[in-house]
Amino acid sequence: MRGRSSRRTCRLSGGTNVRKLEALLNPRSIAIVGASKNFAKLNGRPLKFLLDKGYKGAIYPINPAYDHIGELPCYPDVASLPEAPDLAVIAVPAKMVPDSLRDLGEKGAPAAVVFSSGFSEVGPAGAELEEDVRQIVRRYGMALCGPNGLGLINAFEHVMATFSQFANGETSAGPVGFVTQSGAFGTAIAALARERHLGLGYFVNTGNEVGSGFAEIMTDVLADPRIRVGAGYVEGLKDGKAFAELAEHAMGLDKPLVVTKVGKTQAGARAAASHTGSLAGEDAVFDGVCSQFGVIRAADEEHMLDVLDVLSLGVRPDGPRVGLITQSGGAGVLMADKAEELGLEVAPLGKQTTARLKEIVPAFGAVANPVDITAQFIAEPEIFRDSIKTVLGDPNVDVGVVWFQLMHEFVDTLVEVFKDIRQGIDKPLLVCWVAGPKDGIDAVRDLGFSVFRSAGAALTAAAELVRYAERRRNWLGECDVADEPVGERLSFSVSGVVPSLEACEFLRRSGVPMVETQFCASERAAVEAAHRIGYPVVMKVESADVTHKTDVGGIRLGLGDEAAVREAYERIMSDVSRSCPGADLRGVLVQAMDRSEAVEMVIGLQQDAIFGPVVMVGMGGVALEVARDVTFRRAPVSEAEAMRMIDGLRGAPLLGPVRGRPAIDKQALAAMVAAVSRVGIANAGNVAELDINPVRATPDGALAVDWLLVTAAPNNASEHVF
Amino acid sequence: MRGRSSRRTCRLSGGTNVRKLEALLNPRSIAIVGASKNFAKLNGRPLKFLLDKGYKGAIYPINPAYDHIGELPCYPDVASLPEAPDLAVIAVPAKMVPDSLRDLGEKGAPAAVVFSSGFSEVGPAGAELEEDVRQIVRRYGMALCGPNGLGLINAFEHVMATFSQFANGETSAGPVGFVTQSGAFGTAIAALARERHLGLGYFVNTGNEVGSGFAEIMTDVLADPRIRVGAGYVEGLKDGKAFAELAEHAMGLDKPLVVTKVGKTQAGARAAASHTGSLAGEDAVFDGVCSQFGVIRAADEEHMLDVLDVLSLGVRPDGPRVGLITQSGGAGVLMADKAEELGLEVAPLGKQTTARLKEIVPAFGAVANPVDITAQFIAEPEIFRDSIKTVLGDPNVDVGVVWFQLMHEFVDTLVEVFKDIRQGIDKPLLVCWVAGPKDGIDAVRDLGFSVFRSAGAALTAAAELVRYAERRRNWLGECDVADEPVGERLSFSVSGVVPSLEACEFLRRSGVPMVETQFCASERAAVEAAHRIGYPVVMKVESADVTHKTDVGGIRLGLGDEAAVREAYERIMSDVSRSCPGADLRGVLVQAMDRSEAVEMVIGLQQDAIFGPVVMVGMGGVALEVARDVTFRRAPVSEAEAMRMIDGLRGAPLLGPVRGRPAIDKQALAAMVAAVSRVGIANAGNVAELDINPVRATPDGALAVDWLLVTAAPNNASEHVF
Repeated sequence: MRGRSSRRTCRLSGGTNVRKLEALLNPRSIAIVGASKNFAKLNGRPLKFLLDKGYKGAIYPINPAYDHIGELPCYPDVASLPEAPDLAVIAVPAKMVPDSLRDLGEKGAPAAVVFSSGFSEVGPAGAELEEDVRQIVRRYGMALCGPNGLGLINAFEHVMATFSQFANGETSAGPVGFVTQSGAFGTAIAALARERHLGLGYFVNTGNEVGSGFAEIMTDVLADPRIRVGAGYVEGLKDGKAFAELAEHAMGLDKPLVVTKVGKTQAGARAAASHTGSLAGEDAVFDGVCSQFGVIRAADEEHMLDVLDVLSLGVRPDGPRVGLITQSGGAGVLMADKAEELGLEVAPLGKQTTARLKEIVPAFGAVANPVDITAQFIAEPEIFRDSIKTVLGDPNVDVGVVWFQLMHEFVDTLVEVFKDIRQGIDKPLLVCWVAGPKDGIDAVRDLGFSVFRSAGAALTAAAELVRYAERRRNWLGECDVADEPVGERLSFSVSGVVPSLEACEFLRRSGVPMVETQFCASERAAVEAAHRIGYPVVMKVESADVTHKTDVGGIRLGLGDEAAVREAYERIMSDVSRSCPGADLRGVLVQAMDRSEAVEMVIGLQQDAIFGPVVMVGMGGVALEVARDVTFRRAPVSEAEAMRMIDGLRGAPLLGPVRGRPAIDKQALAAMVAAVSRVGIANAGNVAELDINPVRATPDGALAVDWLLVTAAPNNASEHVF
Repeated sequence: MRGRSSRRTCRLSGGTNVRKLEALLNPRSIAIVGASKNFAKLNGRPLKFLLDKGYKGAIYPINPAYDHIGELPCYPDVASLPEAPDLAVIAVPAKMVPDSLRDLGEKGAPAAVVFSSGFSEVGPAGAELEEDVRQIVRRYGMALCGPNGLGLINAFEHVMATFSQFANGETSAGPVGFVTQSGAFGTAIAALARERHLGLGYFVNTGNEVGSGFAEIMTDVLADPRIRVGAGYVEGLKDGKAFAELAEHAMGLDKPLVVTKVGKTQAGARAAASHTGSLAGEDAVFDGVCSQFGVIRAADEEHMLDVLDVLSLGVRPDGPRVGLITQSGGAGVLMADKAEELGLEVAPLGKQTTARLKEIVPAFGAVANPVDITAQFIAEPEIFRDSIKTVLGDPNVDVGVVWFQLMHEFVDTLVEVFKDIRQGIDKPLLVCWVAGPKDGIDAVRDLGFSVFRSAGAALTAAAELVRYAERRRNWLGECDVADEPVGERLSFSVSGVVPSLEACEFLRRSGVPMVETQFCASERAAVEAAHRIGYPVVMKVESADVTHKTDVGGIRLGLGDEAAVREAYERIMSDVSRSCPGADLRGVLVQAMDRSEAVEMVIGLQQDAIFGPVVMVGMGGVALEVARDVTFRRAPVSEAEAMRMIDGLRGAPLLGPVRGRPAIDKQALAAMVAAVSRVGIANAGNVAELDINPVRATPDGALAVDWLLVTAAPNNASEHVF
């Protein structure tokens, strides 16, 4: 069994055009079941949109009430169609949907979009109807989008299988594939994208996801070579594995995924549950999986669009060094602040660059980074052009951001300058044109620049671009690492808490460094063990019936000599017997007690309802309870990924050299996290929970000091495939 | 001497119209020195603007080259003017500025705006010229704005003493007074405000601030009763006291100040230094002073405008409970998330509200908070109107946010609904109209609503509104608290490190609880002291020559018996003598050593270059070094303010009950912070630095365990007035 299954080979293939959902996303013909002559109505709009936008395939309206709609013949039912349509748009009341689908299945239609509401979102009766739909599409092998959704648009081929308000306006195709679980909010995002000339190649609202879910549809959207970036609005995922695979697939294609997921907070999760009827899932796990697979998680729609804008241009920076060019010293200061806050580097410019800028920039400007070209560029546009080219030409600059404002009187000049700049630049240049005229901004956008409304938005997008590029470089660098063995399978026949010593030995064999631990069934054995291990020692009661050892007096620390060990043994036995009458006290564990300076960490493994086995690492001790500074990934993780987990903790600086103590051995900690993640893989479905708390992390390594291992059920690993 | 000098009385007066800078901000006549016939030129624009916008006062162009400019007579020099102008706009080369000002002074002009560059910003020669200007305006008692600035606008009276591009467009007056230290960036902000129909009553660019600075001008801008909120863009403050007084004055008037200050990060501070030639000041201190005096610190221009927008309407919420109304379940989830992240409460609605909403909202919507009214409101606008009114009528709701999108076809309907809603609502309602038509958004704005482009922006503004309202309630509640005595003055005749024991006694007398500490000049005395205090004890060398005691072996902890005390005394004396030959070892301090569970904190006092004595509290121990989790205020602070300082620390949750330990006594900690702040006031200019580290904070109180007190110079307190 191999551990790095999902990354065994580096999937860099450009993807093919053979899509499972081809008929859904790019149909050669479209039937509209329940088509209306009233183009203002929900069931009239798709036909209007298809005609208005110029869909090239055959269109078959179906409605027994009409002979024709406009010039198109209208059919009384599915059976009367001259051929099986590639795609059927279903706009009939919910209770009629199963029959329509059955008719389409019989006719041989491979795909359908269902607008109708009245399914699981309205309660048990609807859920039953939804189950019927599920059975029918399964039986006929149909691809399904919906029900209870706005449908979909393929803007390249003018497939307007939607009734969304968005289609009332222009729907120019572009490099963004947008898949949304929310209809109304998705429409708003699409409209905002249009406002900034960001073309959506696809717009898909997945609705109740009875057939194809978010990940499946997005995978096929990304397979279109005209799509350069995927945008997702997610309220809840049903299939974490599919999402993770999508994410890694997207990374392989270098088509970044930008996702907004709601339900982060308790209030949000409550609202999501009442809205979608499904749980949002633990948000921190989703966050971790995004980090792991290079998904950019956008905070909100504006952040999403800013990031999409810059990613859709396809240029990637080689590093985090940003060159700032402004017409305002004040804006330069704000940008430098923002850049540094976001982890970008406002790197000093090279000597040659500075010398050249001195020739270009007026004396009352500034030639350091940020470069202040002053308002003089209005009179002399070449100042603008030459300074941007010079800064971007500097080998110390990976990405450029230029800031200016207003200029309503100088649109033509500026557009000419940007045309000129466009030639021969191979680094990303983000344009921040504040309070500028719309025609000017649109013209610069159409030249292939991302234009932002504020310095903050531009730098946030630049930072995401830099992070994505770095993430992908890491991914490329790591994906040919040799696979590692997964480790052994647990073979306990009981479910529940595994006895500490057995768990200890299992974990040790699985590659997790454990503190020296000896089981002792008698006081004498304990004394001998302590003597061998060396004082001071720790003593813990060993009993499968006692899980919270501290609470019942089952743990004694700092036992410094034989007398202390004897006394502790007796006390533990009597205290625990009193607190837990009837518990099977098998004896004690004696452990080495290291007094050297350490940082307490915690490493765990849990079964996430959506993502399956996830590994966790966090700061231990009081910080765990108060700050819950932990991070998750889907198992397995490499040591490199584990290192990124550790570095992402807010408390990570505590692992550096502090107060004379050398830095903690993070590599050892990362190895431990990776080993635990492999335990999760080798025992998928069998380990219900593993909690190593504390892990003692020191400058010399990391050791598990206490642990709790709980099995789910005897050997049912095969039930969980992932 | 009294401690709460700046808050002795609650300054709630509405302000009068008698302004120091009346002639500058609202002149009855304006002379333009160096006026040009070419209205496109910098020195031609003010005249054009004054004429175009309809300034009602007298205008006197001055230029020996012309007889007339347009229909206005043009004067050869200042002396020839028929009267002393209230305000002179000076647009001549820098080297001619002093003569112009002198002429104006002789003529009796009370105020001037100087556009000209070429002063301190260009180096030593310019600085000399600037000093001339300073002397001249001082001699004649003239108010001065500039030099090296864009000038100012009073939009109410059409005073266009500016050459800013901003004035090319409409300059409708409104409730915002905007004072900016950056010209170009200020222009961008002004243009963005105009785009969202947010009227600027004043626009002032302060330039080099040779005459009036940011605080002085803002104070007089706020004195105008038509101004409801102040907006500031700050690159560096010269006078912290004036800023603090301005802030408290604004709080008294209930005219919130919203300030963007740049130079937060190292990169930003570097850029600011090169741009303005002045230091940005320690950003954390500025942050603390803003919190203290209710100034809202905006992260960037968009945040600033969002907050101004909602504050300028004047309605204040009674609490943090937000009622969310949307047409999209998805948007509702996003809003609930955002609200909770920002510290707002998505409170359950009352029973009556829910019952009423059930009658209004379609069955497939949601009547919980967030309320999802669905797209059905397009067909039935009363759903929209009635649900908003119902939610805002709920006593569990303090502020409402409504979200919808697009609706280009329904602008008139929506505007009518908002007109209707406008009647009789007394709670703030923020409107989030995403990707909406500009005419609709503008119409709703003109009805007196704040309209936002995204849920995130609306909720961020709502959160600032709630925080400001709470801050002002606190301020009103606290401003009549009886003054407290400031405590005694230090009377050490030496400057530098104060001997520990003397510092200890002084701090104790000043109301700072100190750990039990006894000075011992001999081993025997140390043993007696330890015996009296109780074991274990701590021993520290006492010598004014030794500041870093730990490094030279000058501290011994956990001395458990007499032998340990004797051994420690000897070792300390020999170790320190070896490390610090010649140091005057006066003996040791013996201190009680409490082993009970405590949180280590740090409390300090320092002289800030801009704000004078500032008090600091933070998390101690490793956290101090790694996370620097500290917060500042200008001294003095009340216990209530100190409590807010403590609660604002990231580590504040560690002070709650943790792992069975009861909560730390925060009140005792706050009292200690307040006492230290009073030390700063009683000894202004005398205490250079006080560093109490650690403070042991326990469930039973707080004690200073180690401290360093440094005096600045012998008794020069009177030199520092603040």
